Amino acid sequence: MLAITNSKPGGPEVLELTEVSDPVPGPDEVVIDVVATGVNRADLLQREGRYPPTPGAAPYLGLECSGVISALGANVDRWRVGDEVAALLAGGGYAQRVAVPEVQVMSVPASVSLLEAAALPEVVCTVWSNLVMIAGLSRGETLLAHGGGSGIGTMAIQISALVGARSIVTCGSQRKIDACVELGVDVAVNYRDQDWAAMVQEATDGRGADVILDVIGAKYLDANTRSLAVGGRLVVIGLQGGTKGELDLGRLLAKRAAIYGSTLRARSPEEKGAIVTQVLEQVWPAFEAGALHPVIDRVLPWTDAAEAHRVLERGDNIGKVLLQVGGADG
Amino acid sequence: MLAITNSKPGGPEVLELTEVSDPVPGPDEVVIDVVATGVNRADLLQREGRYPPTPGAAPYLGLECSGVISALGANVDRWRVGDEVAALLAGGGYAQRVAVPEVQVMSVPASVSLLEAAALPEVVCTVWSNLVMIAGLSRGETLLAHGGGSGIGTMAIQISALVGARSIVTCGSQRKIDACVELGVDVAVNYRDQDWAAMVQEATDGRGADVILDVIGAKYLDANTRSLAVGGRLVVIGLQGGTKGELDLGRLLAKRAAIYGSTLRARSPEEKGAIVTQVLEQVWPAFEAGALHPVIDRVLPWTDAAEAHRVLERGDNIGKVLLQVGGADG
Repeated sequence: MLAITNSKPGGPEVLELTEVSDPVPGPDEVVIDVVATGVNRADLLQREGRYPPTPGAAPYLGLECSGVISALGANVDRWRVGDEVAALLAGGGYAQRVAVPEVQVMSVPASVSLLEAAALPEVVCTVWSNLVMIAGLSRGETLLAHGGGSGIGTMAIQISALVGARSIVTCGSQRKIDACVELGVDVAVNYRDQDWAAMVQEATDGRGADVILDVIGAKYLDANTRSLAVGGRLVVIGLQGGTKGELDLGRLLAKRAAIYGSTLRARSPEEKGAIVTQVLEQVWPAFEAGALHPVIDRVLPWTDAAEAHRVLERGDNIGKVLLQVGGADG
Repeated sequence: MLAITNSKPGGPEVLELTEVSDPVPGPDEVVIDVVATGVNRADLLQREGRYPPTPGAAPYLGLECSGVISALGANVDRWRVGDEVAALLAGGGYAQRVAVPEVQVMSVPASVSLLEAAALPEVVCTVWSNLVMIAGLSRGETLLAHGGGSGIGTMAIQISALVGARSIVTCGSQRKIDACVELGVDVAVNYRDQDWAAMVQEATDGRGADVILDVIGAKYLDANTRSLAVGGRLVVIGLQGGTKGELDLGRLLAKRAAIYGSTLRARSPEEKGAIVTQVLEQVWPAFEAGALHPVIDRVLPWTDAAEAHRVLERGDNIGKVLLQVGGADG
């Protein structure tokens, strides 16, 4: 079969369509014939050689997909050949076929097309697991999410509303702010020309945010802990602004606050399965009811994978960038 | 009535026995005639003027006591005058009488004398709330606690065993190590002549500790995060080694680890009541069964409060230092 691989680390130009061996399902796995795969920031890091592939997973990129089940492992009992599904992958989604533990496979909500469903596994599982399962975001609380226009950000706004919380986001452009407002965000701040930490204090009457979802890391560590409410929880899921920063533990104690470091890719199939189970029970009905929507910036043929990576590198996208998987000509 | 107060911030010598007005119970409070009060490190900071009294509480020291209930507020229904009790206080324990919300009052376990019971509220509530309610320490996990010989440390060893976890402690002397071994600790490290972080790796086959209970803060922040297992939780409850330190967020993400800042004194009566309820249900039976014991270094007459503070400042004590409350002559 064909896959997008890179024989060496580097820029988007190293991505190339190559022949790889077909996946063979383990006893608890299914094989999915891939229709589309989502592009994630982790893919960019992995392509650059800064984020090694998950041990045991396919060595090429792709953390999520949608498609049709084409083969079943011996122990699989909840799926049938021909089922249209989406899946959370440990890798290997940039391919015509991928093997995945059945616990990481998800049905496609009735309101979402099979292609669009590739936009959901990573953002929904990331946002739900971090905001709700880890940080316990709940009704009446306030969420601050950085990168409001990203795939994660656009889903964080929607899931925040789903659990009854207010949302504040930071964005880098008016176009992204407008998109976040359209999605129902309560406050959107342009971090390029406004002091977002001051705006958070103002928007919360000086109380601060109960939960912060952060992809910046070190550069925002001090301002994030300043922006936490008493009892607040900062969840760091990305390090776009560096890894090492000064932490004021006195402030953390005074606020009885928590900082979580979190990643989804490295979790075991059991942990991913527990997240998928909650997502299917708690979030899928909101998609079915039309309360939640996938936010898709663009769909490119997989032969344009390099361009898709450049879109994310420039931060041009609002919501997800998908690759439609086809043959050698796109 | 009499109380130990300090009219100005300073060293132990500023503590003096003075006449203060009697406490009047609020509708949800009881008044306790104090038999004994425990000395806590927070008292030292408050005496030095570095930790202001809790708003609404008595302005003088004392975060826990044992004694006999002598008056009831209008809404109190779970206690009677004459009940022998211990209590978690927001302040004011260094006195002949203290008013406290009834939810913060605890029965005295049958195996413990009324005087000894003053050694329990702070350490048991601190250890239970941080290790179990916040960090979720559970069967088969490994706890690392710094200051193994302290009141907190000696209770952390016992409560760790109660929930089925292994314990590793650091101590500053062989005498304290021997006491921790006597209490059932699995590994005790003298931090003065051994590399405790290396010993934690060795004792856990390179896995690290699942939960760390820390009173040092900045000075240990890097070594503590290095010593965490994947999924580990660092709970910082003291800042004896400074407040600001460099945090490696990359390490926190790679380990999917959490850092909690936590204090007990500033929590609301509702939160303290929730902790007390769990302690009475989950920990008191273990005292009744003789599985847990208060660890008391010494009991001094309250007229020796200054000496009691010096003992804690020198770190001479193994377990709790109590003040027996009497009249003007001790």
